[in-house]
Amino acid sequence: MMTNQMDETLKSTIQEMADNYSASGLFSENRIRNLPSRSSVVEVLHGLRDLLFPGYFTNTPLWEEPSSFYIGHHIYRIFEKMKQQVEIALRYHQKVNLPEEEHRDIAQEAECICLRFFDKLPQIQRKVLMDVEACYEGDPAANSREEVIFSYPGLFAIYVYRLAHELYVERVPFIPRIMTEYAHSKTGIDINAGATIGDYFFIDHGTGIVIGETTEIGKNVKIYQSVTLGALSTRGGQRMSGVKRHPTIGDNVTIYSGATILGGNTVIGEGCVIGGNTFIVESIPPRTKVSIKNQELVYKSDSSFTE
Amino acid sequence: MMTNQMDETLKSTIQEMADNYSASGLFSENRIRNLPSRSSVVEVLHGLRDLLFPGYFTNTPLWEEPSSFYIGHHIYRIFEKMKQQVEIALRYHQKVNLPEEEHRDIAQEAECICLRFFDKLPQIQRKVLMDVEACYEGDPAANSREEVIFSYPGLFAIYVYRLAHELYVERVPFIPRIMTEYAHSKTGIDINAGATIGDYFFIDHGTGIVIGETTEIGKNVKIYQSVTLGALSTRGGQRMSGVKRHPTIGDNVTIYSGATILGGNTVIGEGCVIGGNTFIVESIPPRTKVSIKNQELVYKSDSSFTE
Amino acid sequence: MMTNQMDETLKSTIQEMADNYSASGLFSENRIRNLPSRSSVVEVLHGLRDLLFPGYFTNTPLWEEPSSFYIGHHIYRIFEKMKQQVEIALRYHQKVNLPEEEHRDIAQEAECICLRFFDKLPQIQRKVLMDVEACYEGDPAANSREEVIFSYPGLFAIYVYRLAHELYVERVPFIPRIMTEYAHSKTGIDINAGATIGDYFFIDHGTGIVIGETTEIGKNVKIYQSVTLGALSTRGGQRMSGVKRHPTIGDNVTIYSGATILGGNTVIGEGCVIGGNTFIVESIPPRTKVSIKNQELVYKSDSSFTE
Repeated sequence: MMTNQMDETLKSTIQEMADNYSASGLFSENRIRNLPSRSSVVEVLHGLRDLLFPGYFTNTPLWEEPSSFYIGHHIYRIFEKMKQQVEIALRYHQKVNLPEEEHRDIAQEAECICLRFFDKLPQIQRKVLMDVEACYEGDPAANSREEVIFSYPGLFAIYVYRLAHELYVERVPFIPRIMTEYAHSKTGIDINAGATIGDYFFIDHGTGIVIGETTEIGKNVKIYQSVTLGALSTRGGQRMSGVKRHPTIGDNVTIYSGATILGGNTVIGEGCVIGGNTFIVESIPPRTKVSIKNQELVYKSDSSFTE
Repeated sequence: MMTNQMDETLKSTIQEMADNYSASGLFSENRIRNLPSRSSVVEVLHGLRDLLFPGYFTNTPLWEEPSSFYIGHHIYRIFEKMKQQVEIALRYHQKVNLPEEEHRDIAQEAECICLRFFDKLPQIQRKVLMDVEACYEGDPAANSREEVIFSYPGLFAIYVYRLAHELYVERVPFIPRIMTEYAHSKTGIDINAGATIGDYFFIDHGTGIVIGETTEIGKNVKIYQSVTLGALSTRGGQRMSGVKRHPTIGDNVTIYSGATILGGNTVIGEGCVIGGNTFIVESIPPRTKVSIKNQELVYKSDSSFTE
Repeated sequence: MMTNQMDETLKSTIQEMADNYSASGLFSENRIRNLPSRSSVVEVLHGLRDLLFPGYFTNTPLWEEPSSFYIGHHIYRIFEKMKQQVEIALRYHQKVNLPEEEHRDIAQEAECICLRFFDKLPQIQRKVLMDVEACYEGDPAANSREEVIFSYPGLFAIYVYRLAHELYVERVPFIPRIMTEYAHSKTGIDINAGATIGDYFFIDHGTGIVIGETTEIGKNVKIYQSVTLGALSTRGGQRMSGVKRHPTIGDNVTIYSGATILGGNTVIGEGCVIGGNTFIVESIPPRTKVSIKNQELVYKSDSSFTE
């Protein structure tokens, strides 16, 4: 009896699920064939990480073979995998959104995007090595630059952002977000690939940081855990897409933990120090130190207090 | 010499560990045989995700084979795996806690629970597709519904909650919590499977969100990162188990980042907008906008300030 | 044509990356050979977890074979793997930092360190079982001690810290931080391996917690999500290394979510209750309950409010 009921229930579930798939625009046959693969994008990211930091995240040292030969082999492999995903992403998106006259040679476009990406890769690496310096110099708990590379979630979130940002600038759909959300998942640090971030960037601890899509950050900036660089209001929803909604942070600014800075017109001037837990929705002139006024606390010292 | 010392030390460790195992009630022989498998539960969760979003998280598109045949194969496989874990969980729990007279046919109970779960699955999927709409419509940074499905941690936490909640309602031990803590680990969003959450729910960014066990949330609610819907005090510990300790949130409420809302008697009325960083322990009437009074900040503008 | 351009671009990338590697001190041939393996360290951590909680995180129950035989096999395997990584870490660090006269027999030192570690392991396990009690007793949402072991991120972060701390005390480079950052990545809880934490420690929810390197925490302390036990200022960077920069927390203290306690001279006395969202940079006498003064909120109840 149970088996009959089981068959009946599951058959009805199967039919209803199939109906749901048909009713939704998100699972139609052609679209599915063209979705990029999240796991392949993560493989590309890991491959790029091994190029940025050879020997750190693999068990086989890079240098056992002649270096340029080995690097070359590795680069060609990642290039091909990235190109494949970029092409799938462009094709999917084009079908959905672009007008007829925009039918370009997508395979060629994907190759051009990836070539420009790899052309910039050595420069990105030099930037990331500056970020390593910033993390090491800025944190008394850092024992070595190697420890920073191995272990610092802030550094990981930063270089994933720097890689993803190049694809965001190229307007590649899906892939930049898959990359930054992978880093978000591993670190609790949510940097939108659209943000602009200068050299020598340092994130300490990092969990809970949100850096919105239109944020601009200067050079030599330090940010601690739970800092939000966000929008004043997002009730506008999709109507706000493309509008500058997030703040601008000048060079040499430090933002301590829990600070919230909101709004597209908010500019934190060069050299400011923004204290912990501040809530800021207006611009701050350069070289200002901002802190919350001594918080009024209530003390009950009776040892028999009850809650 | 070193090897002798090593043998001696490790033998002593082995003996002491064995003594610890015997002394604790948590590792006795019979119990261990019956513990559910965390990795199997995560496999079930991934299987359910592939049913909710076919083609998105696997490299082989679902539709290459006749759809209902393929869906059916997939559903039967997940059903069997879930039933196995539910049975183990029920059996383990019964041994420990239930009185003699409650010895039921556990295998049959596990099957009934899973049948009711799969019977509801198409309806859960329709709810989750509404959550996709809420995420897309609510976020100017969302480029497409597909991107939301691929990448939004808030959506992941929501649908894991919606699946786990059905097993929580069935009083299945261990498994709902393993599911929601898996999502917590991936997203930083901690939704207890016991919470009640209405349709069209949107979580943006999400890291640091805590939604307690007895929280009730209406329809069309938006919540941002680091929001706590928690208990006023938990010093009562286990004595508070089962008591309504967490707030009630009405329909169409928006809660901005860092807001803390505490207490089982706290009701946030329909249509409220709760500002960032507010700390609320009392009810708020419907359609009220609450924000912190302009925070008093201290500015030091001398360029030579020292910390 | 495209293929030629591709070859040219990628060849130039290869050459530039090779130049970057040579220019940086972080990727030179000898160093790379000696870097510890992050994945091996994580394997050691998982092996230790299976010793602490046999049967919970593997699909094969520990006790199917005679227990001391099985435990012994498992312990020898983990011991060897840990010794290998400790030796690599000591050797790498010595090359870089230590003066000539410190050339010790590193293999032997690694073995001694690991023997002392395993000698303490049963005692660590007893401490961790007290932490399980603290989590279960302290949380009304906990259904069983087994659920705590399976699912509580706070417990995971605590026992990874307790294991890593022993290697920190032994001044092993890299490995303690790799361990605690692995837990940070899984839980959002960042406990530096250098902190000192007493028995019966409870972390609830946990995402966003930061516990700095020189923090001291007494017995029977409870900490909720987003609590920072941090430094007042870290602009000193590497010059502050080794200085006591983080607070001291007495026995029986509860710290609610979002509280920030900063500074190496800040002492929270025994039995204090620190309220949510407080910002504390000075010492608090024993048995004091501290909370923020009723936050001034602004209410707009017009139903037609605009943002």
